[in-house]
Amino acid sequence: MNINKIKAIEIELYNIPLAEVLSDAKHGDHTHFELILSRVTCEDGAQGVGYTYTGGKGGRAIYSLLHDEMRPLLTGKDASQIDEIWDKLQWEYHYVGRGGILSFAISAMDIALWDIKCKRLGQPLWQVAGGASNKTNCYAGGIDLNFSEEKLLNNIQGYLDRGFEAVKIKVGKEDYLEDVSRVAAVRKTIGPDRVFMVDANYSLSVDEAIRFGNAIEQYNITWFEEPTIPDNYLGFGEISEAINIPLAMGENLHTFHEFEYAVAQAKLGYLQPDASNIGGITGFLQVADLAAKHNLPLCSHGMHELHVSLLASQPHSGYLEVHSFPIDEYTHYPIKIDENGYAVAPDVPGTGVVFDDALLAPHLVKKS
Amino acid sequence: MNINKIKAIEIELYNIPLAEVLSDAKHGDHTHFELILSRVTCEDGAQGVGYTYTGGKGGRAIYSLLHDEMRPLLTGKDASQIDEIWDKLQWEYHYVGRGGILSFAISAMDIALWDIKCKRLGQPLWQVAGGASNKTNCYAGGIDLNFSEEKLLNNIQGYLDRGFEAVKIKVGKEDYLEDVSRVAAVRKTIGPDRVFMVDANYSLSVDEAIRFGNAIEQYNITWFEEPTIPDNYLGFGEISEAINIPLAMGENLHTFHEFEYAVAQAKLGYLQPDASNIGGITGFLQVADLAAKHNLPLCSHGMHELHVSLLASQPHSGYLEVHSFPIDEYTHYPIKIDENGYAVAPDVPGTGVVFDDALLAPHLVKKS
Ligand SMILES: [Mg+2]
Ligand SMILES: [Mg+2]
Repeated sequence: MNINKIKAIEIELYNIPLAEVLSDAKHGDHTHFELILSRVTCEDGAQGVGYTYTGGKGGRAIYSLLHDEMRPLLTGKDASQIDEIWDKLQWEYHYVGRGGILSFAISAMDIALWDIKCKRLGQPLWQVAGGASNKTNCYAGGIDLNFSEEKLLNNIQGYLDRGFEAVKIKVGKEDYLEDVSRVAAVRKTIGPDRVFMVDANYSLSVDEAIRFGNAIEQYNITWFEEPTIPDNYLGFGEISEAINIPLAMGENLHTFHEFEYAVAQAKLGYLQPDASNIGGITGFLQVADLAAKHNLPLCSHGMHELHVSLLASQPHSGYLEVHSFPIDEYTHYPIKIDENGYAVAPDVPGTGVVFDDALLAPHLVKKS
Repeated sequence: MNINKIKAIEIELYNIPLAEVLSDAKHGDHTHFELILSRVTCEDGAQGVGYTYTGGKGGRAIYSLLHDEMRPLLTGKDASQIDEIWDKLQWEYHYVGRGGILSFAISAMDIALWDIKCKRLGQPLWQVAGGASNKTNCYAGGIDLNFSEEKLLNNIQGYLDRGFEAVKIKVGKEDYLEDVSRVAAVRKTIGPDRVFMVDANYSLSVDEAIRFGNAIEQYNITWFEEPTIPDNYLGFGEISEAINIPLAMGENLHTFHEFEYAVAQAKLGYLQPDASNIGGITGFLQVADLAAKHNLPLCSHGMHELHVSLLASQPHSGYLEVHSFPIDEYTHYPIKIDENGYAVAPDVPGTGVVFDDALLAPHLVKKS
């Protein structure tokens, strides 16, 4: 018997309400996030859990790709052949890829296989993925464009109270001077030394981004995230030349090749892959290598309960985003910030993301 | 009453067997193609039919996106607001886009809206989309990499017998000298004057593509299609500099921005958008404008029963691919080649793609 042979794959889709409506400049209001789980069981009973998530749209198509197509395709395959399975999925669905929904589905499968791999090794993900450390710098990523300035500052104060030493806010108001005023107010609230980033969710033109970047330079901004559409690598490059704040992107780059182009042409200061949409841990680590090669700090977007281990594992890690979608509240190891503001990776065999099925159950939409 | 208000949307998925197994260098064997239909009905009963297709994989996820998400989103909207709906779909699903499965789903919806638009105008698509002509140059696109040389030549002879004045074959055999020999044999069969293209389905490295391009230059090849992976725009540029055959691509570019990068960096001789995966007729015409601006002939990939009207409509049309997936055999207006080898667009109000429901019915997988 090959104990690694995949015996069963179960797919689950959840729609999880947010505690309050969260808004950014381009995706509008978020009321829910979707969580799509892939549970892979081997011949010997070993089980791995992978997942991906969305901002509330497209989850059913991801579920379909996983359930209707990848589940039968991978059943019977060797779960330890992670790279081979990753390649197979990329090429099998290349015509309806590349990137997009395919990348989300591959991510969920890949993370499940890594979970099994780490469990068989009896090691936590931060060790298996690189082992540089078990903790990483992090920041609280607000989705707060719809908050009044008062509420924004209260929210920021809440982050400081929880121990965060770095924060990010959304920008992209109708009137950019309002954004400038919010940036000034947040800088005053957090004091001169804490790390502070802004995120426009690609809502600005190149010229608008340059105007805004120059207007907020005085507030010591660590990075300006997604000033303009992710497709416009050369536009990023123009913005980067014209302002004194490093640029960051990654959540909307869903293939390795997109990251290659971004590194070559967008003049970025930080890379922010998301293992839920760049092809799982396999895809994330490819981007980690690319970042190392170009001396770029490796950051992340979303799913902090998983990325904490991946960033900790890498010597060139930058800042983990502790995202406003609280996936970790539905797991047994919610994110832990230590007394110095570092995020600490779980020290259990596997990815460290162990869902609390009882908490998830009320939000189930469909399962196989 | 707003007669244009969308009253109902029905989605259908078909899995249609090919008469024989067809192979290319990168997608392997095709035994079926999938067809996903979107039928949009307005308040006054006007109906439009849109569709997309795949090489046999991913159709269920496209169905899901259309059925579970876009159907409720668009019901009640104004079917005449085609650009607004196109934009809405692009931004609504941007995070699980861009390109990929999203582009296929948008395409099916968009084509249905154009069908309604043309019907309300009482005009055929070739007129509404541009009106330059009702016919276009075309070629027969073989999917024939698995054919023996004898069978390949018989197949080519079949194209000539049907009236084609231009043909394309697949290349990308293990031993490139076998490809060279097949190219030589086809050139001999079709004579010195007919138009002849080759398609590697992105199976070659840059160096392999250069070696092969130089080896077949003597056979007067009109274009070398997808020599290497579509993501490698700069690699295309290198190949283009090193050989004397123009390059072509498009079937794997699923956003306008990808076409922009390809035009700027890949040094292409021909653009080959596919309305089934570039965002329908709206997306196709955006690429048509881009091609015009850069003096590039506009060609097409797949779904010739629709593209015949789109290419005919444009003054800078190049060659219509008459594809080996015979979607048109399931319609009332299969492709018509005139005595001079031109493909002639249907002269009926609408897109001219009217499915024969009785022929489709046996292949239905699911419908709403
Ligand atoms: Mg962001
Ligand atoms: Mg092709």
